[in-house]
Amino acid sequence: MRVFVNPDKATWPDLLKRPTMDLEEIEQRVRPVIEKVKLEGDAALKQFTQEFDGVAIDEFQVSEAEFTEAETLVEADLKTAILTAKSNIEAFHKAQKQEELVVETMPGVKCYRRSVGIEKVGLYIPGGTAPLFSTVLMLAVPAKLAGCQEVVLCSPPNKEGKIHPAILYTAKAVGVTKVFKVGGAQAVAAFTFGTESIPQVNKIFGPGNQYVTAAKQLATRFGLAIDMPAGPSEVAVYANASANPSFVAADLLSQAEHGVDSQVVLVASSEEVVKNVQAEIESQLKALPRAEFAAKALANSVAVVLGEIEAIALLNEYGAEHLILSVDEPWNIANQIINAGSVFLGHLTPESAGDYASGTNHTLPTNGYAKMYSGVSLDSFVKKITYQEITPEGLKVLGPVVEKMAAAEQLEAHKNAVTLRLKSLNNV
Amino acid sequence: MRVFVNPDKATWPDLLKRPTMDLEEIEQRVRPVIEKVKLEGDAALKQFTQEFDGVAIDEFQVSEAEFTEAETLVEADLKTAILTAKSNIEAFHKAQKQEELVVETMPGVKCYRRSVGIEKVGLYIPGGTAPLFSTVLMLAVPAKLAGCQEVVLCSPPNKEGKIHPAILYTAKAVGVTKVFKVGGAQAVAAFTFGTESIPQVNKIFGPGNQYVTAAKQLATRFGLAIDMPAGPSEVAVYANASANPSFVAADLLSQAEHGVDSQVVLVASSEEVVKNVQAEIESQLKALPRAEFAAKALANSVAVVLGEIEAIALLNEYGAEHLILSVDEPWNIANQIINAGSVFLGHLTPESAGDYASGTNHTLPTNGYAKMYSGVSLDSFVKKITYQEITPEGLKVLGPVVEKMAAAEQLEAHKNAVTLRLKSLNNV
Repeated sequence: MRVFVNPDKATWPDLLKRPTMDLEEIEQRVRPVIEKVKLEGDAALKQFTQEFDGVAIDEFQVSEAEFTEAETLVEADLKTAILTAKSNIEAFHKAQKQEELVVETMPGVKCYRRSVGIEKVGLYIPGGTAPLFSTVLMLAVPAKLAGCQEVVLCSPPNKEGKIHPAILYTAKAVGVTKVFKVGGAQAVAAFTFGTESIPQVNKIFGPGNQYVTAAKQLATRFGLAIDMPAGPSEVAVYANASANPSFVAADLLSQAEHGVDSQVVLVASSEEVVKNVQAEIESQLKALPRAEFAAKALANSVAVVLGEIEAIALLNEYGAEHLILSVDEPWNIANQIINAGSVFLGHLTPESAGDYASGTNHTLPTNGYAKMYSGVSLDSFVKKITYQEITPEGLKVLGPVVEKMAAAEQLEAHKNAVTLRLKSLNNV
Repeated sequence: MRVFVNPDKATWPDLLKRPTMDLEEIEQRVRPVIEKVKLEGDAALKQFTQEFDGVAIDEFQVSEAEFTEAETLVEADLKTAILTAKSNIEAFHKAQKQEELVVETMPGVKCYRRSVGIEKVGLYIPGGTAPLFSTVLMLAVPAKLAGCQEVVLCSPPNKEGKIHPAILYTAKAVGVTKVFKVGGAQAVAAFTFGTESIPQVNKIFGPGNQYVTAAKQLATRFGLAIDMPAGPSEVAVYANASANPSFVAADLLSQAEHGVDSQVVLVASSEEVVKNVQAEIESQLKALPRAEFAAKALANSVAVVLGEIEAIALLNEYGAEHLILSVDEPWNIANQIINAGSVFLGHLTPESAGDYASGTNHTLPTNGYAKMYSGVSLDSFVKKITYQEITPEGLKVLGPVVEKMAAAEQLEAHKNAVTLRLKSLNNV
């Protein structure tokens, strides 16, 4: 870690600089994949799955037999853990449901707002050795609660042509049964255009490597929505003298193990705190299977020593995806945080609790996007339609207001739509 | 209008096709403007304002004296109308405020969600002969209610170097006093990078011509958010035998007068209805100052005759920005609509009511984006931060769940962040 003690505010943007992702080159490589899937559908998916995943797939859709097999392969303890997490995530996301809004803004002028589930959503779950079944929960639970009519999941097959059983078990537990063995940019292309076997969707969710990220960006040019712009995962920890250095070190490492481009920022009240945390990192790092990743990520990371007021300002300037407040009275700080994806309060709330099972969503804005984006929530799976209904009495009062404003904007036909109706009321 | 009677469902996508906007060429023209503003700040703004708006501006910020002058120039009736509209829009958007969410997902595991205003927002208001002061209300009212700390408005100056008094009056009435006389792509660039006089913002809102639209798209590549992807304005009207043809015609025309690329779709229960509406259009068109625009827009538009069930299916496939239900029992239809920006119920609710003053927002998803985007609302000006706080009791129950899941995802450091804390609790 690079350590900065009371750095001048002018230097903060530079200290906190995230690596810039240049997707343009990747986009050029992804574009032919997208185009081919658009033109050739399943045939292209087969070719790319052979090429990129090294396996021949005849039938992309996961069969009932495969779901049943997956169920037998996941051990009982893990099932229980997944169901507990599911229940917590459901509880928190269900509470996000908004009732229909009805406001009579003037007598006879009623305005309404309703949340309606996005009809078709596509969930992308990366494959690889670490099966991200937790992301299945984070995306499928709110999709189901939102009432999305079609929830489609794509995940790349392994060399045996299978999806990890924990992913299949979790998908089925949440009620997602349209699961396809397709990964990478070709899966995103299938969501974008539809193929013989995979339905086109309205919005694509989920993490992925740079090819998936670039393909999602391209999907937006074809009229789809995506969950949010992507960037490497990151954590900021604020620790004062009350912090337990071993906890802080464990939290920083749990971020760092995600990959070499993970961002880790420690903001500490004293150099002492930094020193103690660094010593703990050294000792914990040795025991980690992903030590190599973590060590590289930590080399890029920074520790900043600042007084509390300045620390809060810096944390707001950074806008971390995950912000851990390792202090005795965390709400004192949390109440002053305006930019963060999700906040972890106090000494006993590690990021991993929110990553898996506390109930909050782990799909969060990275790369400073916490300044203007929310994490994934029930909102991400609905659109809100407004309605208005005007009675004769309402139109008599509101109509002249609209006529006046429309005339001033020189939109005579807008005015006329009111004038004709007002006349008809006067003629009754 | 092109009229289709009971068209086959397979032909709908073609019938309902919107004109495709190719922003790539425009982007190439906008890019140098953006780059120059990034490098040269106010100097570039001055040059472009001279070049594109034909006026030399020394001081971009609207002065107190100019606000005062504007106040004297707006006639009293219009002021009253604006304040009435403001009050309705405030009432509807204030009702969208969400209280802090607190859910104890398990004993000792508390999850929270709070809405926090986006710190800095930029509102773009087009200039030209028709001053869109209504858009000032639609953007500034929710920005203020959301608690955005910095609300900055840009609008192009006219040849006299002024912004239309109705825009200034409205801005001040809502409490927006940082108003700058800059328009076009250069205003968007100023929002994106900041200049000596115009602050950088986090999110850009507002309509504009193709240059503004392309510049907003480019702004997203520099890490800003925008309100939504843009497209030409559009209306769909569903009319059955109960509809008043002159009202329907007026509604179609009020959309068509926006410009030649406006989209107008009439869905009618019989050919009779279409014929009557067409006759009314002919007669009303003559009296309109913008008849030329409107006639061209109508030439591109379609009328489709369908039974009610099919009509609803078609309306959902189209996903109109504005949907007018000119029928006696509009909720019967409205309850089956899943894709629309804003719905206007019954014979006495013209689109212009919502455009100006009913209380709903008029910044709505076009181009089929109603399938996955909401219109602008209070939500657009906040991000929702989640929080979690775990007690010793909570961690004892939740901790093992997290450990199990983290181990199964092969993220040992994630597991360790919990394990260390659990150990410390057991050691107490």
